Amino acid sequence: MSILVSEVGPRDGLQSIRRTMPTEAKIAWVRALATAGLREIEVGSFVNPKRLPQMADAADVVRAARKIPGLTVLALAPNLRGVRAAAEAGAHKITMPVSASEPHSIANIGMTHEQVLAEVARVIEYRDGLPADGRPAIEIGISTAFGCTIAGPVSEDWVIELAARLAELGVDSVGLSDGVGYANPAQVKRLFTRLIAELGGKAGGAHLHNTRGQGLANVVAALEVGVTTFDASQGGIGGCPYSPGATGNIVTEDLVWMLEAMGHDTGVDLGKLAEARRVLAEGLPGEALYGHLPDVGTEKGFSYAARGPVPEGTGRAAGARECAA
Amino acid sequence: MSILVSEVGPRDGLQSIRRTMPTEAKIAWVRALATAGLREIEVGSFVNPKRLPQMADAADVVRAARKIPGLTVLALAPNLRGVRAAAEAGAHKITMPVSASEPHSIANIGMTHEQVLAEVARVIEYRDGLPADGRPAIEIGISTAFGCTIAGPVSEDWVIELAARLAELGVDSVGLSDGVGYANPAQVKRLFTRLIAELGGKAGGAHLHNTRGQGLANVVAALEVGVTTFDASQGGIGGCPYSPGATGNIVTEDLVWMLEAMGHDTGVDLGKLAEARRVLAEGLPGEALYGHLPDVGTEKGFSYAARGPVPEGTGRAAGARECAA
Repeated sequence: MSILVSEVGPRDGLQSIRRTMPTEAKIAWVRALATAGLREIEVGSFVNPKRLPQMADAADVVRAARKIPGLTVLALAPNLRGVRAAAEAGAHKITMPVSASEPHSIANIGMTHEQVLAEVARVIEYRDGLPADGRPAIEIGISTAFGCTIAGPVSEDWVIELAARLAELGVDSVGLSDGVGYANPAQVKRLFTRLIAELGGKAGGAHLHNTRGQGLANVVAALEVGVTTFDASQGGIGGCPYSPGATGNIVTEDLVWMLEAMGHDTGVDLGKLAEARRVLAEGLPGEALYGHLPDVGTEKGFSYAARGPVPEGTGRAAGARECAA
Repeated sequence: MSILVSEVGPRDGLQSIRRTMPTEAKIAWVRALATAGLREIEVGSFVNPKRLPQMADAADVVRAARKIPGLTVLALAPNLRGVRAAAEAGAHKITMPVSASEPHSIANIGMTHEQVLAEVARVIEYRDGLPADGRPAIEIGISTAFGCTIAGPVSEDWVIELAARLAELGVDSVGLSDGVGYANPAQVKRLFTRLIAELGGKAGGAHLHNTRGQGLANVVAALEVGVTTFDASQGGIGGCPYSPGATGNIVTEDLVWMLEAMGHDTGVDLGKLAEARRVLAEGLPGEALYGHLPDVGTEKGFSYAARGPVPEGTGRAAGARECAA
């Protein structure tokens, strides 16, 4: 099956680390990611630059990314002001984060549920008023959909009700987000089953983190119930790295390896993805990058044959004896 | 559902690291693991002590573990000589590794397929001749079931045929092992579906590694098709650590968290598991321990309520704002 891996590193990754990646380095990384076959990249966040100086150049990055043939350029914006700026820069799609947890919504974007819904309505009105050739898709990611660090458990009924209300307002899709890494596979299956039943074609993808090591396990659960779009971050940068080693976003390299090994088609070339990782590392010297696959190797020789998907010569592992005796 | 987490750290973990854990420290760790609720622990390997000096005290550890009430004491043995020693020490269950890949079998235990099958027959004959109250169960773990670092892809038909032949010889169960971390979730589903169809009640558990970060994802796939026993290693020690950070066995802490969050019953207490981790760390000072959950925290306050399994106060993460805006 064709699976869309939506790369969010240049947004979710870079906004969550301390230093700011230079604009030219960001653009070089986005180009390398596109060359590796990633068809959709979230390249920046249109938020108050005083709050997130790492994202101050979002419009420049969007404009540069727009020149990459075939790439869907995504940007994040929390309100009409940001959506307007993202649309003017030329983003094909704009993701708005909407928290299922009201305390989180207030802490994160300063709005209650009703204020957020009113803002989304204004965004749709604005978007629908744009000329047809410059009308971005509006996607919602429901954050804290699987639980909230502030409010604790979040009602699944409420998450689905919120998704339905957003769909009725005219947004193009509504996905579910687990930015804190609380989701478990059973919960992922339950919530996406309900989301797809409720929203049909407007049901969006999964934004999963790896905080408790369960990121790819949640991907398998979501695949089981028909989810076909997954956010991931190269090198696992960003997210909520509570502590060293506790990665944030699921790692693009590991996700692509798993999906391809399962026989799915991501369109991503693992060798070229390793090249993009080098571009990222050069643009952010000293920043920790995560992922299991990169430690093992991504050289040619990987085989995804249906009946025995075994890397024939896997980097440092080549020729190694199996230890599990 | 009740899931058996079979702790293999004292065997697979300790035999794969350079230093030797003192016998008393091993016993203290096994006791702490049992106190945490682990009902089955593989405590050692009965192999040539010249080849694996870390396991030279296996009989002492088995004898000490036998005194822990309610614990199923497992040991690994590759041949009749080892099985005899394990049985004499009092192991309740003995796991024999049988490679699906013949080159791996020869490299690992010095036997061809036919020689291994003949050895298993001799083991069953020996076991069946023991008095009923001292007759250990014989389990087979088919290693390289998902691919081999030496031979490459392994035929799934052959894995199932081998499992069937082993079952016919009279072993109690046959599980599948991915000691090199090649398995992907689609393959795990296919192979365990066939294993369960072929062997019924003799189909054993899954021994999965996390080499490419896919360990828990493979657990989810195996759960989908009815597997209820999973090997794991506390702190993810052991296995084939090709490189720093590329962990070996799936991490007991992360596995238990995920299973409990999904609503399964492992019988394991995460707080007491953290205590066992401290005992392990004291017994192996300086050795790297892995796992995501331990970085986040395992304090009380974890909630596995069916409709919103959210840790209410999760260690260092408590009160943290969600970053995924």
